[in-house]
Amino acid sequence: MARRQANPPIQEFALIRSLEDRYARHAPGLVQGIGDDAAVIETSAKTWWHLTTDLLAEGIHFDLKSVTPESVGYRAAMANLSDIAAMGAVPRYLLISLAIPRTVKRPHIDELYAGLMKACRFYDVALIGGDTSASKTGLFLSITLVGTTSGRRALFRHGAKAGDHIYVSGTLGDSLAGLKLLTTSTTSQPSGKRKIEFSRSHQRFLVRRHSHPTARVAEGRWLNERRLASAAIDLSDGLSGDLRHLCEESRVGAEVELDRIPISRACRAYARTIGVSPIRLALTGGEDYELLFTASPHDCDTIDRQAGTRGYRMTRIGTIRPQRFGIQMTSDGRTQPMPATSYEHFR
Amino acid sequence: MARRQANPPIQEFALIRSLEDRYARHAPGLVQGIGDDAAVIETSAKTWWHLTTDLLAEGIHFDLKSVTPESVGYRAAMANLSDIAAMGAVPRYLLISLAIPRTVKRPHIDELYAGLMKACRFYDVALIGGDTSASKTGLFLSITLVGTTSGRRALFRHGAKAGDHIYVSGTLGDSLAGLKLLTTSTTSQPSGKRKIEFSRSHQRFLVRRHSHPTARVAEGRWLNERRLASAAIDLSDGLSGDLRHLCEESRVGAEVELDRIPISRACRAYARTIGVSPIRLALTGGEDYELLFTASPHDCDTIDRQAGTRGYRMTRIGTIRPQRFGIQMTSDGRTQPMPATSYEHFR
Repeated sequence: MARRQANPPIQEFALIRSLEDRYARHAPGLVQGIGDDAAVIETSAKTWWHLTTDLLAEGIHFDLKSVTPESVGYRAAMANLSDIAAMGAVPRYLLISLAIPRTVKRPHIDELYAGLMKACRFYDVALIGGDTSASKTGLFLSITLVGTTSGRRALFRHGAKAGDHIYVSGTLGDSLAGLKLLTTSTTSQPSGKRKIEFSRSHQRFLVRRHSHPTARVAEGRWLNERRLASAAIDLSDGLSGDLRHLCEESRVGAEVELDRIPISRACRAYARTIGVSPIRLALTGGEDYELLFTASPHDCDTIDRQAGTRGYRMTRIGTIRPQRFGIQMTSDGRTQPMPATSYEHFR
Repeated sequence: MARRQANPPIQEFALIRSLEDRYARHAPGLVQGIGDDAAVIETSAKTWWHLTTDLLAEGIHFDLKSVTPESVGYRAAMANLSDIAAMGAVPRYLLISLAIPRTVKRPHIDELYAGLMKACRFYDVALIGGDTSASKTGLFLSITLVGTTSGRRALFRHGAKAGDHIYVSGTLGDSLAGLKLLTTSTTSQPSGKRKIEFSRSHQRFLVRRHSHPTARVAEGRWLNERRLASAAIDLSDGLSGDLRHLCEESRVGAEVELDRIPISRACRAYARTIGVSPIRLALTGGEDYELLFTASPHDCDTIDRQAGTRGYRMTRIGTIRPQRFGIQMTSDGRTQPMPATSYEHFR
């Protein structure tokens, strides 16, 4: 349930949020309504259900000229799986709706489903329903995913406290680098001497990170079941935007140490060849589907030790501060406000 | 979860169903997967959850030239509420995803939400989440609705047996007549002498039945809780198409007595003015959102009596036959196969 503000069609796009806020209300069983990665409902004394939904629009979230239908299906499932991962929940059931234009042919739909189901099988998720329709224009997919947690707990966006450490899983910026590689014409690809630094394996890695990202479901479950995180969100809109969401819901500020942000060698090499800072890719690059979470200093040793044992890459990148601190980034001893830029999807 | 086959973009549209069938599988807690009005999951020893999702595409399911955004929102909610009604469930929670083109302005979105929430409030349904996105082309809405039943029972499409009576609620064909009134130019409206027969109140009634239909939630609950129906489906694709779905899932045939089909006076008057049979509107007209259900002959007296007391209009229109009988319609002593036409949404 990322609040995708890509290419906002209405200047006052915040309107949507205000409308939802206006109409949202308490309801029996509702633990968490609008405003987190998923809605949470208590279905029994022991179980919470987590519901998330994402809509993907051709020309906004994907372009069939640069990605395969298989990747579109795979990524659509993964966007939702990542929301469920960020709740610390186990993904269980999926519904998919498709609006299909005449230009999209049978083999494309076949491939799209193959990608979707590949992602579902990996996480043992069952396809339980959906809807299909014609489309006069582009291809639209809407997915709803249900996950569960037990023991009345979950990872919410609220809960971070001043002094908590800020962690991210994996490496950031890879997906945006992969998207840029897919959408940039070959003539402007790295060449000559630079080609040596930026190898084909780097290229494959980055393209793969964009076309077949991995939702951090096991990591989310671990953090939730061991009560190791005070708050969490998935990185779908980019570190800058998603950290802001977490801080807003927790009513805190944050200080990010830019030099600590984990960047893959491939992303670093790619950034060098196109002459931008890899940090910029990491801050604004969306769809990495890594976890951003906070933890009390008391739990950091446990996190670091258990993550090591389990083979999870978890990196401390900063500290939660009081709300009045705002959201700042530090590098080489200098501190400045983090720009409020969110990832802009393909357009 | 109507399988909208409007304006099929792929000749082999049945492909979608075959793909879903291929990938559908048994999963823990799953009572009913693909193939009914909603998916059903056992969430506790006493409770079943019903999940349904519907995608509405501009130019296919609605045209903002002929209907208001308020009606689009209202009908989108109602399409899902009707699926939940057809399961005999109580609607509880709603998620909405919107893809919004630049042409759709703030007041339109405001109105769309107002219509959606009007329908929700009427059934005490809470908006718990969603997603918003830009759209390069048309307006797309996807709604997911959650309903619940207790006592491990629900109204499924399967369960009808030869000898059962076939019932429908309300009157059929009104929504299609209303749509035709909205989309036909005024010059071809009934005029002169015909105008007298087809009054303005008829017109208002039919337009209202299209723009603000009513999901039969109370009726569905009653049928389920009293165990009065052997199978049920909602009329979203038209009687001809939806009866076929019910018969396929129940592996039975059906005989419909055309003269028994309940038609409103307004629809009858409208059909006369445009020179078509009102039965044709009833058979092929979709989005009436009435219930089609079957009941054992033993229960028919109870149904007729209780429906009368409760003010529900329930009409027996035929009888379930063995599968080899096929789906036939009788009128004036003549029997012929019911044409396999489904409602085609606006285009």
